[in-house]
Amino acid sequence: MPELRKDPVTDRWVIISEERGKRPVFLTEEISPQKTLICPLCPGNEPMTPHEVFAIRRDGSQPNTPGWTVRVVPNKFPALRIEGDLEKEGIGLYDRMNGIGAHEVIIETPNHNEHLFDMVPEKLSDIFIAFKERCLDLANDKRFRYIMIFKNYGQRAGATIDHSHSQLIALPIVPKNVSEEIRGGLTHYKIKERCIFCDIIAQEREEKVRVVSENEKFLAISPYASRFPFEIWILPKKHESSFTDQPENYPSLAEIFSLILRKYERALNRPPYNFMIHTSPLNTPHIPYYHWHIEIIPMLTRPAGFEWGTGFYINPTPPEEATSFLKEV
Amino acid sequence: MPELRKDPVTDRWVIISEERGKRPVFLTEEISPQKTLICPLCPGNEPMTPHEVFAIRRDGSQPNTPGWTVRVVPNKFPALRIEGDLEKEGIGLYDRMNGIGAHEVIIETPNHNEHLFDMVPEKLSDIFIAFKERCLDLANDKRFRYIMIFKNYGQRAGATIDHSHSQLIALPIVPKNVSEEIRGGLTHYKIKERCIFCDIIAQEREEKVRVVSENEKFLAISPYASRFPFEIWILPKKHESSFTDQPENYPSLAEIFSLILRKYERALNRPPYNFMIHTSPLNTPHIPYYHWHIEIIPMLTRPAGFEWGTGFYINPTPPEEATSFLKEV
Repeated sequence: MPELRKDPVTDRWVIISEERGKRPVFLTEEISPQKTLICPLCPGNEPMTPHEVFAIRRDGSQPNTPGWTVRVVPNKFPALRIEGDLEKEGIGLYDRMNGIGAHEVIIETPNHNEHLFDMVPEKLSDIFIAFKERCLDLANDKRFRYIMIFKNYGQRAGATIDHSHSQLIALPIVPKNVSEEIRGGLTHYKIKERCIFCDIIAQEREEKVRVVSENEKFLAISPYASRFPFEIWILPKKHESSFTDQPENYPSLAEIFSLILRKYERALNRPPYNFMIHTSPLNTPHIPYYHWHIEIIPMLTRPAGFEWGTGFYINPTPPEEATSFLKEV
Repeated sequence: MPELRKDPVTDRWVIISEERGKRPVFLTEEISPQKTLICPLCPGNEPMTPHEVFAIRRDGSQPNTPGWTVRVVPNKFPALRIEGDLEKEGIGLYDRMNGIGAHEVIIETPNHNEHLFDMVPEKLSDIFIAFKERCLDLANDKRFRYIMIFKNYGQRAGATIDHSHSQLIALPIVPKNVSEEIRGGLTHYKIKERCIFCDIIAQEREEKVRVVSENEKFLAISPYASRFPFEIWILPKKHESSFTDQPENYPSLAEIFSLILRKYERALNRPPYNFMIHTSPLNTPHIPYYHWHIEIIPMLTRPAGFEWGTGFYINPTPPEEATSFLKEV
């Protein structure tokens, strides 16, 4: 019997329809992204990118030259522009503002053929440090309300450049999905005076069937109302609303993140995936009703008319099965 | 300068980022869906599908035999099951219920190689009649709150079967996206005592720059905060909350729908696309603050980490440009 499950934070329902999974639904073909003759993200090609805004350079090398291990540059084709005023405006029923924001590319490694799957936790930890440094810098710009950090790996997950990178977009508005999480968190907090994510963590550690991994500081679960097969959320076990609050925990985060990626590799053969860091808005960084976390979604199915029309999802893999499979590999 | 635009009904923001469109963002490759040796939706193969629940048979032929022009059957791999009780249940923080619902396939033509692009309006009108008949029948089942009708055309839009078909899912809950539209519509109605969609129609007919086509009964617009390049909404010009209310208008709907598809074909070479019919919930079919419409989204770009994380969209094609392009072809 298929099952309808509701995400307790956002009221988003998901159809867990295992029988449907008996069809060959998983996309297996993966065409690798466009090969470029010269990779603009490789060391030596720094002049091909806008000037770097942050880099980890342990060898004391100069900006915009080789020697970096992680390098952050503005996106050459930004979705939003850094210069200008918002100029909010109403046009009849409609609202608009200028597309002000920052759009940056975090080049995760100087090695063109290395991906997050290949990296030791120490390297992942450096990437988290780069995220944090950019967040702290951009938070000084009072036009911005939110910073969304995300990664597209594999063409089917939206990657257009092969060289390993993630992206950051600073926005003058709080994203809809985060607002919904905050609204759900606040509703729960008003009744219980507890963080709903903390309560989820407690219930998951009790029930155990959706805990894929746990270390000193973090919990990795396949969420109860997973939208996608093998969806994983990584949450700090202690309440923390902002990703940038406890950088001393990044090594622990990197350890569990790396473990999940290795499990994906074994179980799903380097699937295309997206990850998104959900953190508190810039103007309310420390709140008792929001809990930052990373959502990782392998792109094994394709959202289609039903998902676009309803905002609900059909997921052929129950998270309990995904968990038991990922725990074994 | 890119622009941020807010959908007036749902508060969903979209980044209209034209400069970004200068990159080769449009997906052009399209692998055709899996070829099956025997198509289960072709005439003569009726025994391969579950028993039909509706068909248009002008030749007086028997059910589950050839002779039909449109045929509706339960999905052989349903996401939801028709038999059983909801058995709503709380498990700690979580809510679940049995996956009760209907999942049907509307076979739009007996001709394996004919697609909606090829059909005269009269044939499209018959498909709308099939939608309506199934909606009216399923509305008698008091377990259901909503019927979502949608189509996936082309592999990239989620189609897995080549033979032209659309789908219908009856749900025991109102979809999140529809609830948000209703909430937005109600907020507007409480202040203005007018339907927000009627107001949008009035503003669009005044401004003209996003009206792709208009006939006696319907308006086709590229919405102000289009999520996708060449997104089109078709709305009845006179207030109507339910798709099933005025079947006498289906010929007019079919005419404008067919025109839009022919424009897509000319402009975008039979793009993969989804369409979704947004109509009022079954328990509130006639409401002054909701206005049914069809949303058509060509799948020329790929939602990725930013869209999954934020619930916002980046659209490289301003709807005014899409409109002027589609009007010309």
